[in-house]
Amino acid sequence: MKKVETVKKSLRDYEALISAEKIEEIESLSRELKGARVLHINATAYGGGVAEILHTLVPLMNDAGLVADWAVIEAPGEFFELTKRMHNALQGKDDKMNKEDKELFLRVTRENAQRYSFGAYDYVIIHDPQPVGLPEFVDFGEARLVWRCHIDTSSPNMDFWSFLNNHLGYYDAGVFTLRDYAKDGISINNIVEIPPSIDPLSNKNRALRDDELKLAMKKLRVDVGRPIISQVSRFDPWKDPMGVVDVYRVLKEEFKGLQLLMIGAMASDDPEGWEIYDDLLRYAGTDYDIKVLSNFHGVAEIEVNAAQRISNVVLQKSIREGFALTMSEAMWKKTPVIGGNVGGIPLQVKHGVNGYLVNSIEETAEYTAKLLRDKELAREFGEKGHEIVKEHFLVTRHLVDYMRLFKSL
Amino acid sequence: MKKVETVKKSLRDYEALISAEKIEEIESLSRELKGARVLHINATAYGGGVAEILHTLVPLMNDAGLVADWAVIEAPGEFFELTKRMHNALQGKDDKMNKEDKELFLRVTRENAQRYSFGAYDYVIIHDPQPVGLPEFVDFGEARLVWRCHIDTSSPNMDFWSFLNNHLGYYDAGVFTLRDYAKDGISINNIVEIPPSIDPLSNKNRALRDDELKLAMKKLRVDVGRPIISQVSRFDPWKDPMGVVDVYRVLKEEFKGLQLLMIGAMASDDPEGWEIYDDLLRYAGTDYDIKVLSNFHGVAEIEVNAAQRISNVVLQKSIREGFALTMSEAMWKKTPVIGGNVGGIPLQVKHGVNGYLVNSIEETAEYTAKLLRDKELAREFGEKGHEIVKEHFLVTRHLVDYMRLFKSL
Repeated sequence: MKKVETVKKSLRDYEALISAEKIEEIESLSRELKGARVLHINATAYGGGVAEILHTLVPLMNDAGLVADWAVIEAPGEFFELTKRMHNALQGKDDKMNKEDKELFLRVTRENAQRYSFGAYDYVIIHDPQPVGLPEFVDFGEARLVWRCHIDTSSPNMDFWSFLNNHLGYYDAGVFTLRDYAKDGISINNIVEIPPSIDPLSNKNRALRDDELKLAMKKLRVDVGRPIISQVSRFDPWKDPMGVVDVYRVLKEEFKGLQLLMIGAMASDDPEGWEIYDDLLRYAGTDYDIKVLSNFHGVAEIEVNAAQRISNVVLQKSIREGFALTMSEAMWKKTPVIGGNVGGIPLQVKHGVNGYLVNSIEETAEYTAKLLRDKELAREFGEKGHEIVKEHFLVTRHLVDYMRLFKSL
Repeated sequence: MKKVETVKKSLRDYEALISAEKIEEIESLSRELKGARVLHINATAYGGGVAEILHTLVPLMNDAGLVADWAVIEAPGEFFELTKRMHNALQGKDDKMNKEDKELFLRVTRENAQRYSFGAYDYVIIHDPQPVGLPEFVDFGEARLVWRCHIDTSSPNMDFWSFLNNHLGYYDAGVFTLRDYAKDGISINNIVEIPPSIDPLSNKNRALRDDELKLAMKKLRVDVGRPIISQVSRFDPWKDPMGVVDVYRVLKEEFKGLQLLMIGAMASDDPEGWEIYDDLLRYAGTDYDIKVLSNFHGVAEIEVNAAQRISNVVLQKSIREGFALTMSEAMWKKTPVIGGNVGGIPLQVKHGVNGYLVNSIEETAEYTAKLLRDKELAREFGEKGHEIVKEHFLVTRHLVDYMRLFKSL
C-alpha cells in the first residue's frame, strides 16, 4: 500500500460556479468537521473514474479543513485480472470464483494489510471490491469504516457476491451511486446514496479558449456550419452504437448536412472493445459524416469537452447503464441531451425539461429532430440542464454528501 | 551507448534447412575469420526489422567463431523524432533540416561518442542514419567501417541527404539492400548489395504444431474449408490496401466462398496508420469475409505464420516498396505469391515461376484466379518459391554475405 500525492485545489475557485447556499453549507460542515482525519483507499491512482474523482475530492477535502489522505493497494497483475473478473461478475456476468481466486484475493489483502503504516484516522473510505477485505486484517482503531461501491451489484453472480458480502460486516456504512445498486441481504445496515459528480474546472468541463476550441474542432474533423449530434462513450454493445448510427440515418433524410460524432476511449489490451469499434466502422461504411474517434486519433479531454459544446444534441442511447456522467458533462455545457431511460440517466435527464428519455431508435430520432428544428427549445433545455448539474452533479455537492455522511457516523 | 544482450543461437540448428554447399561455405569463411572482432551499432534493441535481424545475426556470428557485439545509441525522444523525419526525407519526403536539427543530431552523436568504451574491433557496422556520425568522434583505431543502410536513398530530399553524405567519407564500405538504393555521388566508393533475409527458425517462419495452427486459425477467424487470400503489411497507402479489397471483390464473383485476410501491425502513436485502418474497414463495410486484423486483435508472429501457411495465395500489391520480406516469408511456407513489380519484390518473385508480378488490380485478380483454379500450378509455384528462399533469402546467406564482405575489406 502506498500514498498518492495530489495537486492542491481550492474551493474558492469553485465559488463563482455554485450557489451561495452551497457555499454556506460547505462552510458550516467544514467548521463542524475541522481536523477530521480521512483516508481513501482504492486500487489505482490513474485510469478510471474513481481515480479521476479522488484527484479532485481529496484536495478539496483538505481545503475544507479536513486532513484527507489517499492510498492505493499494491498487487501483482494476476490480482487485477481477478478483480476485473469480479467487477464483471458483480454486474451479473457468469463466472466461478474458485479456491485459487479466493486465496489470491486474501493473500494480496493480507500483504497490503501488513504494509499498512499510516496511523490513525476518523473515517476510512474503501472504494470498490479490490481493497474490500482490509478491515479484517488492519487495525483501523476508532475509525468509522465506509465501503464506497461504484458499481451496480443489484443482480450479481452469487458466487462472487457471497465472497464479497462476507467482508462487508466490518463496515459502518455502504455508499452506492443509486440505492437500488445495493443487493438485498447486504451485510451493511446503513446504505447511503451518493451519486457521482463532475469537476467543472477539469479539462473535460472547463470553459475553452477560442484557440483551444478551434484546434479541437480540427482534430474532430467537424464542419461547425452544419448540425452535429454526438455520443461519447465506450464502444460497448450496452451503449448501442449501431442504434445511434440508425438514428443518424433516419435523421439524415431531413437534415442533409447532419454529422454524427462517436467518441470513445480505447485500450490496447481490450480485444472485445476493438471488435465493437471495427463493427461500428464497417456499419458506418464510407459515410464520412459519421466520425468515429478515439484516443488513438489524438482525441482526449479537451476534444471531448469541445464535442459536447459544439453538438446540437448529445445522445447517450444506452440499453443498460451505470450512471452516464456524459449526460451531466453535456448538460453543464448547456447542450440538450437525449438518453436511454435506464440506470442513472433519468436522475439527470428530465423528460421535456432539459432533454428526453427514450426507449427506441424511433423515439430517439423523433426527439432529436425536434431539437434540431427548434433552436429556441434547444437553448432552453440547455439552460435547464446547466441548472440541474449546478445543483446536483458538481463535485462540490459530492463533497457536501461525504461531509454529511461523516457527521452522521 | 550501451551493449545489447542476445540469446545464444547455433548454426547446427539451421543445417537441416540449407544446402550442403552453404554449410561448407560458412565453415570455410569461419576458419578464415576466426576471432575477428565485430561491433554492430544501431538505434534500438527492440522494434523494427533491423533489431529483429540483429537478434539472429549477432548470435550466429558468434557461433561461427567471430567475436560479435551489438550496441545501441542512447538519445532523448526529440532525437528519434528528428531521425524519423530524416528517414522519411531520405526516401523523398519534403522537409527541411534546420540549424537546430543539425545541432541536435551532432550533440547526441558527440554524447554517445564520449560514452564509447567498448575497446577495439576489426569491423564496425553502423546501421542506418541514427548513429552515422559516430566515426567523426570515436577513435575506432584500425577497424574497417561499414555503413549498413536499410532504406532506399536513391531519390532523397537533398537537404537531409547533403547532411548525411558529409558523414559518409569515413566509411570503407556502404551496404545497401539493392545497389540502386545508393544515391549517385555518395561519398563511399565501395558499394555492396546485401539483400535482407528471414530467420526460418523464428516464430514467424518455423513449422507450427497442429495445436498452434488450430488456435491461430481461431484467432484469424477463417474457415479453412473455403479459399483464402491474404496480404500482410503495414496499413499504408503505398501497400494499396483498398486495391486489394477491389481484387477480392472481382474474385468474389467467381469464388463465392473466398475470404480475404488483411493483417498489419499498428502503433498506438501513429494517427496516420489509424486513418488508413479506419478507411479500410469502412471500405470493407459489412462483408465479414474480409478480415482486417492487427496486434490489437491478438494477432502476432504465430498468427502471421499461420496466415501465410493456410492462404491459397499471398499478395503484396505494393505501388512502392522497400524489399517486402513478406514475400519470402510466404514463399518459405510454399505458398504462391503475387507482388507489385516494384522495389525488392522482383528479386523474390519470378513471374510464372513461383508467382506473378503485377501492375494493376485487373492483373492481380486475373493471376490470383488462375492460382485459385489450378491447385497443381499453385503447389508447383509453392515448391519453387521455397527453393528460391532456401538459396537466397535465409539468414544463413545473410551471414555469408557479411563474412565475405569482412574478408574483402
